[in-house]
Amino acid sequence: MSACLGLNKLARLEIPRKAIYRLSLYLRCLQRLKSNGIRTVSSEALARAAGVKSTQLRKDLTYFGQFGTRGLGYDVGQLAQMITDLLGTNSLQPVILVGLGNLGLALLSYRGFEPEGFEIVSAFDLDVVRRRDKKILQPVYGMDKLAEFIRGHGIKMAILTVPATAAQAVTNELVQGGITGILNFAPLVLQVPEEVMVNNVNLAIELENLSYFVQE
Amino acid sequence: MSACLGLNKLARLEIPRKAIYRLSLYLRCLQRLKSNGIRTVSSEALARAAGVKSTQLRKDLTYFGQFGTRGLGYDVGQLAQMITDLLGTNSLQPVILVGLGNLGLALLSYRGFEPEGFEIVSAFDLDVVRRRDKKILQPVYGMDKLAEFIRGHGIKMAILTVPATAAQAVTNELVQGGITGILNFAPLVLQVPEEVMVNNVNLAIELENLSYFVQE
Repeated sequence: MSACLGLNKLARLEIPRKAIYRLSLYLRCLQRLKSNGIRTVSSEALARAAGVKSTQLRKDLTYFGQFGTRGLGYDVGQLAQMITDLLGTNSLQPVILVGLGNLGLALLSYRGFEPEGFEIVSAFDLDVVRRRDKKILQPVYGMDKLAEFIRGHGIKMAILTVPATAAQAVTNELVQGGITGILNFAPLVLQVPEEVMVNNVNLAIELENLSYFVQE
Repeated sequence: MSACLGLNKLARLEIPRKAIYRLSLYLRCLQRLKSNGIRTVSSEALARAAGVKSTQLRKDLTYFGQFGTRGLGYDVGQLAQMITDLLGTNSLQPVILVGLGNLGLALLSYRGFEPEGFEIVSAFDLDVVRRRDKKILQPVYGMDKLAEFIRGHGIKMAILTVPATAAQAVTNELVQGGITGILNFAPLVLQVPEEVMVNNVNLAIELENLSYFVQE
């Protein structure tokens, strides 16, 4: 871990990435309970809904310190709020998207991010003109505007949908601009400084993985 | 593990899911080497390209039995072929997609699956008429045709992009029809028989995970 990281950052990083994923899952379940008018939930019921063991759930929730009332379970609204605070999704988070191939265009027109607290505020591509005639609501800029935009708008997160051959070079630009979280769709292991987090989504690899298991 | 699984299936399941993911990664790296005219590769170089430790790589390749020549490394073409055989992606695999919301439509128009060995052969939605006027190459059917199509075409894999509220009911139909591998985009833990494999992709959760780490 880099010595230049502040104490707060160090403390944050102590929660394992997998625990953060599970907290997201719990949050989804809590939101569903809440919308059904349910106000308290036992650790067993919440664990079952999230598909984890209740011992795991209780362990994950110890990151919030003492919590829950024995025999009464968790307050649904309160726990949802605590997880939201921790994840930093209280307000709409601006995200940029780089690479307007088929997948990039598809994600840009996907309306599923905003209800979850993320807004793709702009997109970047080598070929600005060709992309402009598509039905895109967000402004599209050339790659030369990338670093300036990131700094000017204080953007921290980027979705990367460029071809594998360009992915590392674009990543370097993103990191230099100030991006610290990258959702990477390029089939490539990105090299980044340790203070930058990369989550990889590779749809072909997910299908390939299934393909192995469905064989007879 | 279900007693009705054949021995072959049991043997296949012995390779952990994470190892299968890594084999997919190695395959991507090998394909890149091959297209660059490189014919042999050391375990160290291949491990570095895939972002894993070389001890991990060597362990993963023991699933193929004795392999590689000490001091010479691996034959790129041969290793790629062995992994392809194992994953079952020698021929184009038919996949169906269920749920034509924004994400479903986006994935249907995404051309990135076929080069990887997967073809979305048809799509299913409750509302067939409304979806027909979109620029879709694949035939779109109503949900009443689902089981018949799966059985008639021997489909094993499905991409699920229905709303969370419908996901479990549709999953039950898929499983009854004969689907054994589901790529699930619905933000929900699906309940399936143990012989069915579900891989979950939740883009909002991936962003939420990054959101936690990019906070200052």
